[in-house]
Amino acid sequence: MERTELSSLGEFGLIDHLTKNIELQNASSLLGVGDDAAVIDHFGKQTVLTTDLLVEGVHFDLMYTPLKHLGYKSVVVNLSDIYAMNATPTQIMIGLGISNRFSLEALDEFYEGVYAACAAYGVDLVGGDTTSSQKGFIISVTAIGEVAPDKFVKRNTAQKGDLLCVSGDLGGAYVGLLFLEREKRIYRESPNVQPDLEGESYVIGRLLKPEARKDIVDFLAESAITPTSMMDISDGLSSEILHICKDSNVGCVIYEDKLPISEDMKKAAFKFEIDPTACALSGGEDYELLFTIPQAEYDKLVLNEQISVIGYMTEAEEGANIITKGGSKHAITAQGWNHLKAQ
Amino acid sequence: MERTELSSLGEFGLIDHLTKNIELQNASSLLGVGDDAAVIDHFGKQTVLTTDLLVEGVHFDLMYTPLKHLGYKSVVVNLSDIYAMNATPTQIMIGLGISNRFSLEALDEFYEGVYAACAAYGVDLVGGDTTSSQKGFIISVTAIGEVAPDKFVKRNTAQKGDLLCVSGDLGGAYVGLLFLEREKRIYRESPNVQPDLEGESYVIGRLLKPEARKDIVDFLAESAITPTSMMDISDGLSSEILHICKDSNVGCVIYEDKLPISEDMKKAAFKFEIDPTACALSGGEDYELLFTIPQAEYDKLVLNEQISVIGYMTEAEEGANIITKGGSKHAITAQGWNHLKAQ
Repeated sequence: MERTELSSLGEFGLIDHLTKNIELQNASSLLGVGDDAAVIDHFGKQTVLTTDLLVEGVHFDLMYTPLKHLGYKSVVVNLSDIYAMNATPTQIMIGLGISNRFSLEALDEFYEGVYAACAAYGVDLVGGDTTSSQKGFIISVTAIGEVAPDKFVKRNTAQKGDLLCVSGDLGGAYVGLLFLEREKRIYRESPNVQPDLEGESYVIGRLLKPEARKDIVDFLAESAITPTSMMDISDGLSSEILHICKDSNVGCVIYEDKLPISEDMKKAAFKFEIDPTACALSGGEDYELLFTIPQAEYDKLVLNEQISVIGYMTEAEEGANIITKGGSKHAITAQGWNHLKAQ
Repeated sequence: MERTELSSLGEFGLIDHLTKNIELQNASSLLGVGDDAAVIDHFGKQTVLTTDLLVEGVHFDLMYTPLKHLGYKSVVVNLSDIYAMNATPTQIMIGLGISNRFSLEALDEFYEGVYAACAAYGVDLVGGDTTSSQKGFIISVTAIGEVAPDKFVKRNTAQKGDLLCVSGDLGGAYVGLLFLEREKRIYRESPNVQPDLEGESYVIGRLLKPEARKDIVDFLAESAITPTSMMDISDGLSSEILHICKDSNVGCVIYEDKLPISEDMKKAAFKFEIDPTACALSGGEDYELLFTIPQAEYDKLVLNEQISVIGYMTEAEEGANIITKGGSKHAITAQGWNHLKAQ
């Protein structure tokens, strides 16, 4: 495979190369890549902004993460935060730190994924910063979105009596990670053994190529449902439920048998002899939406198979609890991924 | 000195700690830290955005960079890009990658600088991402600003005949870096030798604690001068002049004896036996503004001692040239810092 050294292009040559095919899709993108800053016109709308830093060896492992998928996911995880505000993403900016172990072809693969995500979600890449790193690949993404005045949805506004809902199914990304980490260990011990990921494409796809839930935000708008609170589930369901409870000063009850668990995830969890419920509660990186709605809105979402009502909000004093399949009640504890403690 | 391990707080405890004293200053900052995304109201204005990634060992050396200064500078270099669009910065977001070599006290020092810059320039910290890194300190800053509709100034709109202007003085940051690198080498060889930076506080300050030229943008507005093009000088004057010439499809002539050079920089350059003109042309990190104005506006800026007219724009075919003090003419070459080639 061809290998073009990045140093042969220089910083500006590299930026030109990586951005030459950009076509802006949003009328609000007045000025994109190529100046000190991008310019965005959001007359009559409010601007929503989020940023994420992804570091090789902490957030991703290039041993089993194709660069194209990494580019796609880097964008998607930020768009997910914009959707979680009930807003529509419109632009992104990307900062990259690259060590000289990466070639131009490798970067092109990464950007292929970035542009695929931009196309899939209708967002414009409008700026960024490309520099070198001494070690590893560093990705900083900022996403910008818009929302009609005061229609954004925070996480501190859930009300007692609201229904607690979650999109999609949970735990898949975590189990996908277990498979990939297992194969990595095996490969290191015996490089000639072929990876055995047969039948696990669903959970591995959940980890490597997540999607942001544009469809859910669109459905809520079409159904005239305004969630009372919303956030995305990046650190695990239980951790995010505790966030909403603490920030909104409410408690909650959720039901184990209402948790959305896919057959694929359940089977995969059993191979590792772990409890699918634990994966759904504490596995991270699912990028689903967690939100609350008034009970009166229940009829509107009952037909959407992508939304599960998993419980309801209570007085703060009652705490956050889960009722197990056996009928016993336990306090929910945060066991989401904690990157700082993981070191 | 007290040392609190970051792991004792956890990610969310750390975020709470670092953001507990934020008071939003801009009416447009509707929602700040603490949700999936920040929300900004820019009714009737256009939003300007920029992002920068700073990596330890590439962009800064903690051996001689106090963390408070680093926090201040990380903000300022992004605000400089907003001012370079003729816009007013209003918000920032900060993503940090931190290895476990850093304590909470170290991070607090960094944020002290961040908040000092926010206060000095009237911007709000509205969000971010805090994560771990395997090695080194990684800083990603996104700055957001606003500008009256279509009043932003690009770098591709300079016209033949325009005057080329630069703010402040040039080359200081580069010479400051030479001093600090020299002292670092000496310290490594003989740790008992005291650093000899006497009298060099100006050039060292230019490197470690630069300011963004809010005053120049304010002056241009008060004087009713709209630059025809503008950018900030982060990579060195000659490199940025070539940017404006290429993007605007013009040439230029500049005069060596018009380059703004401070006495402190000149003396310091002589200690290293290097040419102050070369430092002014090719030293980076000065964060001054480079802009073009129509000749008719000359009278308006002649009294501002912080602005130097260094030349004028010509036909593209004439190229970009410098007339030396001796009267000879040379093509300007880009010798700005190139982080990718430096590896």
